[in-house]
Amino acid sequence: MPVLLAPEAAPTLPGLLQAANLTGLDTRIVESDQPMPRIQGLGSLLSAGPSEISFLANPRLQDQLKHCRAAAVILTPEAWESLEAKPVPFRVVLCSQPYLMYALLAQWFDQHRIQGLPKGIHPTAVIAESAQIAEGVSIGPYCVIEDGASIGKGTRIGPGCVVGAGSSIGSDGLLHARVTLYHGVHIGDRAILHSGAVLGADGFGFAPHPGSEPGAWAKIAQLGGVSVGNDVEIGANTTIDRGALEDTVIADGVKLDNQIMVAHNVRIGKHTAMAACVGIAGSTTIGARCTIGGASMISGHIVLGDDVHVSGGTAITSNIDKPGRYTGVYPFDEHAGWQRNAAALGQLSQLRRRLRALEKQDSN
Amino acid sequence: MPVLLAPEAAPTLPGLLQAANLTGLDTRIVESDQPMPRIQGLGSLLSAGPSEISFLANPRLQDQLKHCRAAAVILTPEAWESLEAKPVPFRVVLCSQPYLMYALLAQWFDQHRIQGLPKGIHPTAVIAESAQIAEGVSIGPYCVIEDGASIGKGTRIGPGCVVGAGSSIGSDGLLHARVTLYHGVHIGDRAILHSGAVLGADGFGFAPHPGSEPGAWAKIAQLGGVSVGNDVEIGANTTIDRGALEDTVIADGVKLDNQIMVAHNVRIGKHTAMAACVGIAGSTTIGARCTIGGASMISGHIVLGDDVHVSGGTAITSNIDKPGRYTGVYPFDEHAGWQRNAAALGQLSQLRRRLRALEKQDSN
Amino acid sequence: MPVLLAPEAAPTLPGLLQAANLTGLDTRIVESDQPMPRIQGLGSLLSAGPSEISFLANPRLQDQLKHCRAAAVILTPEAWESLEAKPVPFRVVLCSQPYLMYALLAQWFDQHRIQGLPKGIHPTAVIAESAQIAEGVSIGPYCVIEDGASIGKGTRIGPGCVVGAGSSIGSDGLLHARVTLYHGVHIGDRAILHSGAVLGADGFGFAPHPGSEPGAWAKIAQLGGVSVGNDVEIGANTTIDRGALEDTVIADGVKLDNQIMVAHNVRIGKHTAMAACVGIAGSTTIGARCTIGGASMISGHIVLGDDVHVSGGTAITSNIDKPGRYTGVYPFDEHAGWQRNAAALGQLSQLRRRLRALEKQDSN
Repeated sequence: MPVLLAPEAAPTLPGLLQAANLTGLDTRIVESDQPMPRIQGLGSLLSAGPSEISFLANPRLQDQLKHCRAAAVILTPEAWESLEAKPVPFRVVLCSQPYLMYALLAQWFDQHRIQGLPKGIHPTAVIAESAQIAEGVSIGPYCVIEDGASIGKGTRIGPGCVVGAGSSIGSDGLLHARVTLYHGVHIGDRAILHSGAVLGADGFGFAPHPGSEPGAWAKIAQLGGVSVGNDVEIGANTTIDRGALEDTVIADGVKLDNQIMVAHNVRIGKHTAMAACVGIAGSTTIGARCTIGGASMISGHIVLGDDVHVSGGTAITSNIDKPGRYTGVYPFDEHAGWQRNAAALGQLSQLRRRLRALEKQDSN
Repeated sequence: MPVLLAPEAAPTLPGLLQAANLTGLDTRIVESDQPMPRIQGLGSLLSAGPSEISFLANPRLQDQLKHCRAAAVILTPEAWESLEAKPVPFRVVLCSQPYLMYALLAQWFDQHRIQGLPKGIHPTAVIAESAQIAEGVSIGPYCVIEDGASIGKGTRIGPGCVVGAGSSIGSDGLLHARVTLYHGVHIGDRAILHSGAVLGADGFGFAPHPGSEPGAWAKIAQLGGVSVGNDVEIGANTTIDRGALEDTVIADGVKLDNQIMVAHNVRIGKHTAMAACVGIAGSTTIGARCTIGGASMISGHIVLGDDVHVSGGTAITSNIDKPGRYTGVYPFDEHAGWQRNAAALGQLSQLRRRLRALEKQDSN
Repeated sequence: MPVLLAPEAAPTLPGLLQAANLTGLDTRIVESDQPMPRIQGLGSLLSAGPSEISFLANPRLQDQLKHCRAAAVILTPEAWESLEAKPVPFRVVLCSQPYLMYALLAQWFDQHRIQGLPKGIHPTAVIAESAQIAEGVSIGPYCVIEDGASIGKGTRIGPGCVVGAGSSIGSDGLLHARVTLYHGVHIGDRAILHSGAVLGADGFGFAPHPGSEPGAWAKIAQLGGVSVGNDVEIGANTTIDRGALEDTVIADGVKLDNQIMVAHNVRIGKHTAMAACVGIAGSTTIGARCTIGGASMISGHIVLGDDVHVSGGTAITSNIDKPGRYTGVYPFDEHAGWQRNAAALGQLSQLRRRLRALEKQDSN
């Protein structure tokens, strides 16, 4: 496994559970004759080795327990109850939420790597005199922090980031290498921004310019900014444009994957999560606790309510008021079959007319 | 509002209209008992405050005038004529093109911010001796300007940009932070390029390489460049590949939003505008004054004529000769309804056959 | 043409064929009274000038030979045989694979440009003491090479690249400007990575966090890495996420175009090629020698076998075991026609029911 502690640095199983379980999940180690192991890392059921801990979160993977070589496995009391092949050659940790416990363990192991990262402000960082850098901030080589920007305490900024004039980042954030914030971008606490993300580029706004050449456009300067809440993660090469007059707004707890495009004046509600390659056109509002599947497209100037779940690849072209799951991508086929259906699709309204005609005839 | 001038720097309403109206639009301030205001900023009808100007461009928003607290509002003579609730508590500016006037005002206010940006060439910029830098050029920290590149007068280049060997940028351009131009990329005057844009990466060209392992590819070096006209804007993280043998060509006045992909040997005509996430495959030609909706995909080796308008999310897979609007994205539905229709779609050509059989029977 | 050698540096036609033909293709220069030309560059049939070589790979372009002004043209013996208008005003090179020969010639001409690029390690590169830099490595300005990273011999790294802690790049690679590798990213020999590519950002993994605010998420730290084979090319602004526990794996010879998104734990087989804007969701496996058309979306947790060819814009939502071509994008139409069909599509399962009812009636 990629993240291993040296044996002497590895915690015992009870020590690990206590250290990682910051949210107080119920965990119980099942009694056993086996010695209490030290845990050096974390792996899946099939790949974890004899000094690592694993977990069973998906009941369909229960069969993999037979081949598991891990030192310990986390599973629900129900899964443990139903297990036939006992005793097992690993320590068992009972927890009602093994997937969340796995998340906490993975965070704990990753903290060891993060703690070892270079600290302090690299001498090559170009920081404006008027910028406010709180204590405990790390800034990597070749960063540029412009006039009046502020960075909250404990925030780490990777190499080559740019923080524009008057922009702000809260405390305990993590900007990976080469993140760009334009001016007037405000980000809350505990943000994670991935490489290549661009926040605050101009929204796409143009007015027809009839006085000029036919078809020419006049640029509408984008005077708004971007406002991002706390606990937001933004993926690699994702872009969030600044608003035309007001801010584009990303609420607390929103999670955006890679290569997502958020246009100007969009508002995204709390804890909404979007998979990669989603595009949201301008001035659209998305509610809280939504999930948007990968490569979905959301039209501009519409409203999606809270708790709306959009399947991957779906084009949402009108308001959705009702919570629920919405889908729109039509099925692929072997090319020849698709060709036949695609041709018929072009005649669909005509087929409907013909069907109606037959029905009329039959009813006479 | 985000961009405010201090009261002492704010122009009077007539002064502002004169200063911002560079294209000579007709504007007339309606007479009123109210004193002539000074204007510190710009806002929407509902958000503009008592020292700001607003505008009514969309007739459907006319009702918002009732709640408007702005110092002044721009509207058409027709809208003013039809307004019932007179007098109004703001100064009224009549203009036949309020949206264009808004664009000009927004530009004027943004110029104040832009004028205040750092000027000159940052000492950390690495500039090849053979590069030609015109007067009045600003180059930010950590830029790299390679051999034989040239930058036209008044152009501003943000932090961390790379201008490849022999590439050129015209005058009065604006490259935001972290734009990359490979070698042999030529850009006209007044360009605006947003962060993360990459111009001149290799087109995707490979020849099957039968002498090697089955399925292996031989790279086709991409020897062409990229040629971009005047007054072009290119969005954040958009990529425009270099041509295989000739240049990829973007004509004057083209506006490209974020995360657009323009493949090698594509040609895009004058004043064509594309919303975000559009992909255009290789060797396709798109005419002048087209608009391409967000997330549309244009196949390779096809031709779209002038004045073609493609709705968002549409896959254009063949030539379009005739001006007009073209659409292809099929409607989403609640998941259960979609499932029933999706299943039926896979039988569509079969349904057509059955319908034909019934019609035959009935006609006998 | 963009890449020209000076006349005194240009090889003779036989010299060029010998120098460029590294894979030993059969080539034969047809006898002719014309003097043997020197070749300064490479162009298409219609654009190549009198000191350049061209090629005929697509039989449908044979008519263009009439207007060809090139010094020499490569074509198949069959094309030459069938040509009526002989003699021709250019030297003819017979080769059974003219497109592959063109690829080799383009590589040869491009090598001249590449050889002239700056060499050595720029003094502004920030290289950790523990990093291993092999001989003949070039590193551009403002690169950051972190702790324990290693760069193989002859590899060139453009300006502003970041190579994360413990990551490795094999020999003879080429990283264009502003490529980002996070920690734990391993890349084989002869890689070509384009600007803005990000390898190793966190996969998109979150567990519901019921103890917290409704809808809140707990981040699953991504402990795996990225493993990329030999001879892989990765396009501009493409993102490949690190695995959750194991690595995301890209096999030898894979070619990825721009703006592709490869999610965590994806595995892509040898020599598979993907056009731009493809998105692949997490834990999906794609076989060897597949081709994936531009803007296709592949769902997560599915398996595509070897030799699967997906048409552009297709959403692949389930396993594909059988080699072949698969398509799913439905045809666009003029807007009015599309509207009629789109409305009917929403009633498709109902139409099927009505058709069945008619059939029953008729069979009674």
